[in-house]
Amino acid sequence: MKSEWNDRKFFQPRSLVIFGVSRKPGSLGHMFLRAVMDFGYQGAIYLIHPTADQIEGIACHRSLDTLPETPDLAVIMVRKEQVAEILESCGKKGIHLAVIITAGFRETGEAGRRREMELLEIAYKYGIRFIGPNCMGFFNTHPEIRLNASFSPTQPIPGNVAFLSQSGALAVAIMELAISLRLGFSKFVSLGNKADLTETDFLPYLLEDADSRVVMLYQEGLDRPDRFREGLYRLCRRKPVLVLKSGRSQSAARAAVSHTGALAGSTRAVDALFRQCGAISLERVQEFVETALAFSLAPLPRGPRVGVVTNAGGPGILTVDALERVGLQVRPFQESTRQRLRQLLPEEAAVENPVDMIASATQETYRETLKIVLEDESVDAVVVVIVRPPVSTTPEQIAREFQQLIGKDHEKPVMIVLMAHRDEHSGVEIFHSLNMPVFSHPDGAAWALASMWEYARWKSLPEEEMVTLSVDRDQAQHILEQAELSPRGFLAEQQAWKLLELYGFPVPRFAIVRDLEEVLDIFRTWHCPLVLKLLSPQIVHKSDVGAVRVNLQTESDIRQAWDQLQELQEKLAASTSAVCLVQEWISGSRELIAGVQKDAQLGHMIMVGLGGVLVETLEEVAFRLAPLTPRDAREMIRETRLRTWLKRTRHLEAMEESRLVDILLRLSQLVVDFPGITSLDLNPIILSDDGRRLTVVDVRMEWLGR
Amino acid sequence: MKSEWNDRKFFQPRSLVIFGVSRKPGSLGHMFLRAVMDFGYQGAIYLIHPTADQIEGIACHRSLDTLPETPDLAVIMVRKEQVAEILESCGKKGIHLAVIITAGFRETGEAGRRREMELLEIAYKYGIRFIGPNCMGFFNTHPEIRLNASFSPTQPIPGNVAFLSQSGALAVAIMELAISLRLGFSKFVSLGNKADLTETDFLPYLLEDADSRVVMLYQEGLDRPDRFREGLYRLCRRKPVLVLKSGRSQSAARAAVSHTGALAGSTRAVDALFRQCGAISLERVQEFVETALAFSLAPLPRGPRVGVVTNAGGPGILTVDALERVGLQVRPFQESTRQRLRQLLPEEAAVENPVDMIASATQETYRETLKIVLEDESVDAVVVVIVRPPVSTTPEQIAREFQQLIGKDHEKPVMIVLMAHRDEHSGVEIFHSLNMPVFSHPDGAAWALASMWEYARWKSLPEEEMVTLSVDRDQAQHILEQAELSPRGFLAEQQAWKLLELYGFPVPRFAIVRDLEEVLDIFRTWHCPLVLKLLSPQIVHKSDVGAVRVNLQTESDIRQAWDQLQELQEKLAASTSAVCLVQEWISGSRELIAGVQKDAQLGHMIMVGLGGVLVETLEEVAFRLAPLTPRDAREMIRETRLRTWLKRTRHLEAMEESRLVDILLRLSQLVVDFPGITSLDLNPIILSDDGRRLTVVDVRMEWLGR
Repeated sequence: MKSEWNDRKFFQPRSLVIFGVSRKPGSLGHMFLRAVMDFGYQGAIYLIHPTADQIEGIACHRSLDTLPETPDLAVIMVRKEQVAEILESCGKKGIHLAVIITAGFRETGEAGRRREMELLEIAYKYGIRFIGPNCMGFFNTHPEIRLNASFSPTQPIPGNVAFLSQSGALAVAIMELAISLRLGFSKFVSLGNKADLTETDFLPYLLEDADSRVVMLYQEGLDRPDRFREGLYRLCRRKPVLVLKSGRSQSAARAAVSHTGALAGSTRAVDALFRQCGAISLERVQEFVETALAFSLAPLPRGPRVGVVTNAGGPGILTVDALERVGLQVRPFQESTRQRLRQLLPEEAAVENPVDMIASATQETYRETLKIVLEDESVDAVVVVIVRPPVSTTPEQIAREFQQLIGKDHEKPVMIVLMAHRDEHSGVEIFHSLNMPVFSHPDGAAWALASMWEYARWKSLPEEEMVTLSVDRDQAQHILEQAELSPRGFLAEQQAWKLLELYGFPVPRFAIVRDLEEVLDIFRTWHCPLVLKLLSPQIVHKSDVGAVRVNLQTESDIRQAWDQLQELQEKLAASTSAVCLVQEWISGSRELIAGVQKDAQLGHMIMVGLGGVLVETLEEVAFRLAPLTPRDAREMIRETRLRTWLKRTRHLEAMEESRLVDILLRLSQLVVDFPGITSLDLNPIILSDDGRRLTVVDVRMEWLGR
Repeated sequence: MKSEWNDRKFFQPRSLVIFGVSRKPGSLGHMFLRAVMDFGYQGAIYLIHPTADQIEGIACHRSLDTLPETPDLAVIMVRKEQVAEILESCGKKGIHLAVIITAGFRETGEAGRRREMELLEIAYKYGIRFIGPNCMGFFNTHPEIRLNASFSPTQPIPGNVAFLSQSGALAVAIMELAISLRLGFSKFVSLGNKADLTETDFLPYLLEDADSRVVMLYQEGLDRPDRFREGLYRLCRRKPVLVLKSGRSQSAARAAVSHTGALAGSTRAVDALFRQCGAISLERVQEFVETALAFSLAPLPRGPRVGVVTNAGGPGILTVDALERVGLQVRPFQESTRQRLRQLLPEEAAVENPVDMIASATQETYRETLKIVLEDESVDAVVVVIVRPPVSTTPEQIAREFQQLIGKDHEKPVMIVLMAHRDEHSGVEIFHSLNMPVFSHPDGAAWALASMWEYARWKSLPEEEMVTLSVDRDQAQHILEQAELSPRGFLAEQQAWKLLELYGFPVPRFAIVRDLEEVLDIFRTWHCPLVLKLLSPQIVHKSDVGAVRVNLQTESDIRQAWDQLQELQEKLAASTSAVCLVQEWISGSRELIAGVQKDAQLGHMIMVGLGGVLVETLEEVAFRLAPLTPRDAREMIRETRLRTWLKRTRHLEAMEESRLVDILLRLSQLVVDFPGITSLDLNPIILSDDGRRLTVVDVRMEWLGR
């Protein structure tokens, strides 16, 4: 059994022991030790080495037996064949935490997988929790800890960003970029094969960790999605979580499998999961790091309106383009702002938004302009563009003026776009000390600001309770238990309709009929056109074989249809009588689709979209994981162009959207109540021409058992 | 009158004279002179200065009078009030080329605009051609010229990229980035206000310039679009032209106007222009520079299939994601390739595509793996990922191995993704000498490769002739000359139909009728359902007032409709008789739209898209500038999801697309023949349910005169 794991002790070990250090400079085992020492670890370091007396001035032991204490943590970087034995010795010594750096396990095939299972068995036996194998270690930059037990290429800059990475190599690359942008980290964990500890295990710690204001996450596969989803949602409610999602394409998923043996979740399900948790998904390495920098330093914007301050026109235009491309707004300033700017700036300057102070702008011009623009109530955030100007100021001088002007406690985010070679006069560290992140190009600042606004908006929404509809669950259970399934696992149509009716979906009136007179009785009672469908387990696609007769308006229509269906029935199964489903005929020119698909890894995905011939052509569909909140449902509808489309129906009322929301929530409840439903299509759902009524007119439900 | 301009003399002046140099180090006038001298200009430099005897060892003259010769080129950077006088003195001296750097002209308002007009008048008088005012100068890195007459922040690296920029400041920022990526330039021109010379004037020179393999273009507004379009198209047929388009958003367009007074063309028209010319449009500065680097060095790929070679899994996955995101393909290698890789690489490596050589890869592993992958016939290009590995090799060592392996003459592009801090062992210069561009992240390499493949494909298409349809242009002219126009300039409907019929559009049969009997006669002859439309100049929106009666199937339908229209007519204009348009009634559930809109700057834009209620909801429309080639028309259809949609009609035949192409070509011809047509809507065009017939069923045409 797995033991409770002590995340505090993991990040703050008072002592550690390293297996696999080396005397040889340049070797992995030597570099690692130097990294630990150089970063200034405050605890005790013990080394185990078969022959050396000391390395880098630290005495070596032959085994754990001679250690004066039981270390809090073991770091193992020996040959793969030795790892199990050493882990066992740690267990015997009473060590409960380990970092297994050695590679050559699950990622290399069957023999490796067996070796990894062996590690897990040992860990369970002794109550050891470990990261890895096949990982790059971890670090904690807290001033009282200063433990760098990783292959980070250069010393990390202390800061407030925590980073969990499944890929060690990518983490190294990201760390390099982060250092060049001067992004600081609180914690870093390379998760490797995730044989034992996964990102899910670290989420509660990061939730409480006061040193970590932002969390970065790189993962190639998901494990235990339910716990992960819950932990991630709770974390996102408190602090921003940025996700660099990989394995989005089919070939990449293949690569992910061969890389760490992880099964990449279906892209759409994973996207839905992150969106529902409030995590910020990013696709590009540079966006990932730049956005983290912004969250790490700047306050969240209170709105989407951005003021742009520049000393050159072209870059100003590009900045506006970049901002509007990501959905932010660059609107004219208030009149009073324009007047103040007009007084401050030379005649050639532009005082609209963007403010072009022209190339003669000095550090004082920058300061005063920023002041005026920040004071404009119609501005929620400011982007300051500094193009290396051929005049006598430097970014550093501008930074110092900003320091005097506002210090670090401004309420609106100020992003610096420094389109210039970075040198000792770039002032990046001063800007960062003022909580103004520095970017090299407008796109990075725009992207980051848009992510911050999106997160701010999401976070300000109240938490939503799941809605539980009142339905006769027992009767539904009964229907499913009695269900006749086709060989492929589809529910007989009449049973699917009963289930939908029980769950309160808007379905047409229907009845099962066994002779013509019954149909005619119904026609006389209902007073509406009818549909007749032949019910037969032999028929898979009813429409294709003519087993569906629609829009029957007269008794003679009905007689004719009945005869044809009876004839068809006799062809399929000689000398039997037709059994038919009779339904009210629903017409309308607008079709929608909704449905459920069960993802092997993440569970039920609810879908909604434009229906009819448009489904496959336009792929205007949105997905979310069940269970849905009403907000999830509304967001799905808004994510596609469905809402615009609904709005254009003749009689526009909010009602239509709420009716569709209702259908999605019922779908969610149905699959939560009955997880054995593996797929469900409501296609089409017809919107009546007056825009007032949605009706499910066809259903296909797959059920894999109780 | 403007004189012919001598572009060769401009780029290769044997001598130049500078007005406005300064003795003061750090001043603009001093920095500029130093840049000219430091870059090693081979010609004679003359300085004009009111008081100094010499500056930086070069003797100063008080005026042009004492110069021993007439310089080829004048550079003017004096105060704005003096520019005109100096330009005049240049004209008198016989100087025909100038660079006017001084700002404070059109970009500053009305007074500046007048100053700029004065410069133009002087230039015309003396036959001077000039760039600027308000520009940063130009340079030519040719080894026999080495003229840097610009404010480029650092010395440019000689190379094969030519760069025309409207914004000087942005050019400086781009140059900074280019230098850090080691992108080399042949020529650079800062165009400034484009009072005289514009990008159009430089296109013919760049077409012939053997030193320039790639052209980069940054512009905020378009002048003389016809000449520009023709010049750009010819240039693109020979070499790749990358465009950083700005002013895409409304606010940015506002900024562009206040910046240089240029009127930004409507985004859609400008996008269409670049696409039709074969130029490569980019939105982000970094993509712009990185894509230029790729074109500058690597050969064009022959297909979209990319092999990925990496020493780490995570970055490999991100690379595949990035490649597939931009439409490239990462497919499994041939079996023989996998076998060869399996023999070469350790057990833990992955030999699918991507090849993960794992972290132990040495420079020899890289060399041999690249060799094997390049030899795979199913691979059109290779991306090599180098993550700073904790083992004993460096990117430089890998570069040296590649040098031995293949040198610079490989047929397939090889892109290097160096995810590591750049230092003296990064080998960037060696990789570049092998024509292998180096990128910092997978996204840049992917974007660049996709652009190269797109360009390669476009370039391989044969040039298309414009198709001229045979139509009775004279009769069309006659119709338009006789046209009755509504107050808003709309053609009367019957005239629009006649024009469409003359131009061969598929229109329903129609006739003008003045009494009921005429309609009934037609009904008996045509044997089809009819539409009746009341023709009246008082009616703007016929459907809204009930002036259109559709789907008249019987004589009684027709009688009833006629009576109602007659009644309506009497309400509109007492005691007059109705005049109606009678048409064949066309039905079908699929609607398209096509049309023309005249852009003030770029001329007629042809549009096609999904019709009906979908037009405004989905905005599935595409635009191209007239005149269209058949390929333009096909591309428009493919750009939207129209083609998929057409394909899903019941009876799929290529015919439908060709019929739609035909309609678009006829639209193009119509507006080329009659440029006075300012807008034309064919909405809807109905596709018959058998998919075999397209018919225009409504038309609205705006005509602003002969």
